[in-house]
Amino acid sequence: MNARPIGVFDSGLGGLTTVKKLSEFLPGEDIIYLGDTGRVPYGSRSKETIIRYASQDAEFLAGFDIKAMVIACNTACTSAFDVLDRSYDMPVYEVVSAPARTAALSTKNGKIGVIGTNATIRSGAYEAAIKSVNPDLEVFSAACPLFVPLVENGRYGAEDIAALAIAEDYLLPLREKGIDTLILGCTHYPLLRGVIAKIMGSDVMLVDSGAETARLVAGDLSGRDMLSQNPGRGNVRYFVTDSADGFATLASRFLESNVCGLVEQITLE
Amino acid sequence: MNARPIGVFDSGLGGLTTVKKLSEFLPGEDIIYLGDTGRVPYGSRSKETIIRYASQDAEFLAGFDIKAMVIACNTACTSAFDVLDRSYDMPVYEVVSAPARTAALSTKNGKIGVIGTNATIRSGAYEAAIKSVNPDLEVFSAACPLFVPLVENGRYGAEDIAALAIAEDYLLPLREKGIDTLILGCTHYPLLRGVIAKIMGSDVMLVDSGAETARLVAGDLSGRDMLSQNPGRGNVRYFVTDSADGFATLASRFLESNVCGLVEQITLE
Repeated sequence: MNARPIGVFDSGLGGLTTVKKLSEFLPGEDIIYLGDTGRVPYGSRSKETIIRYASQDAEFLAGFDIKAMVIACNTACTSAFDVLDRSYDMPVYEVVSAPARTAALSTKNGKIGVIGTNATIRSGAYEAAIKSVNPDLEVFSAACPLFVPLVENGRYGAEDIAALAIAEDYLLPLREKGIDTLILGCTHYPLLRGVIAKIMGSDVMLVDSGAETARLVAGDLSGRDMLSQNPGRGNVRYFVTDSADGFATLASRFLESNVCGLVEQITLE
Repeated sequence: MNARPIGVFDSGLGGLTTVKKLSEFLPGEDIIYLGDTGRVPYGSRSKETIIRYASQDAEFLAGFDIKAMVIACNTACTSAFDVLDRSYDMPVYEVVSAPARTAALSTKNGKIGVIGTNATIRSGAYEAAIKSVNPDLEVFSAACPLFVPLVENGRYGAEDIAALAIAEDYLLPLREKGIDTLILGCTHYPLLRGVIAKIMGSDVMLVDSGAETARLVAGDLSGRDMLSQNPGRGNVRYFVTDSADGFATLASRFLESNVCGLVEQITLE
């Protein structure tokens, strides 16, 4: 039993899709969320820059005496997980392993697609994680650098012409490979699910990295007897590094409900 | 006469369109360019964050004993020009006044459009600058937050379906107002000239903020007798805050020629 909060960070607001799932699986837990909105997006940055930013994010969360940390940003995970995992004496979760495992165990024809930011795809982390489950699987990857700006600007509806045109360019090569499972390797991408499903077709299973990770975190903390015994709803506090104005509007897209919690702006450097 | 370099900074690579024009007008000048690629884009950030970043950018350039500074980023100009102009004892140029003046003197029907990032449009700086030339002019503004990501991802061709669909949503309201002059209030936007012209029609004059500013800087430095007497080509040095890898490829889009100069990565904070 452990009533301390769970810390979650992301480069921006995408990690809120993970917070949403965590709150569903673990309603009694307190959560501290940090969105580094002053420096989003991480996906186009170099590995060294990402490690520096992610280390500052983690340090901020650690200041709240958290019991576990979730790196809810694929880009930060693939570049900085090892560094952070070595630095903290608590469970540190990344968002790659759980969806990779789910995809590896779900595919029927052995062909899995992975989409993510430039940095995530460049890292090859999903491919490595999938092959560690089953080396015979074939993995096809595609970087989708415009998906995050599209989502952050509200252009993710399944009828959006621009989103469909951009998604088609990114995804048709994966469809032509005949994949039957596609990992949405960025916590922003679940909002584009309708667009992606339209292009990939209903036979392709979409695996949401944030949701799979939340499920894993819930199970693992339970197994370690580290869950809170709070019978009510836990508190969620939100921190951002750019202005908190407008956060509520954007955040409600990811949470699919109103932000009920404090939002504060902080400075990291 | 003054052989010291001119400093130019931008949040990313868009300011290279200004460097290109400066080099055309003033081929003998040495130029130090700083692109804050590790923190681009500024356009979606709060005013306080933009002032902090711009001050760090300016301080870095000032370290090179520059004779003049060009803030080649509309977002930084509209949020941080006053702060920087007060801080330095050298001519500091912003990219708003020159295009505003050109537009105010060029319009025939008195209706001017302005497009830029969220921060630029929110500032109202173009509207104020245009009205200071002629208060009777009508100004219609539109924020185009997806234009920078589109350009940085190479989707700016006049046939690009996504760019056209997004541009249409941003620009049709301006076209319906009957503007005859449109200020491209972001140094990235000249690359989208074909897309923008297609939607606005050939009767609408497009005013490029980077080019107009370069023209103003050349005239002003000449008037102050501050130009270099170098009869050859000046040196251009490039600094970026994210990895220098890939800089050459992206930069060549903006410069429309190969980067001939040093590119170095630096850290600001």
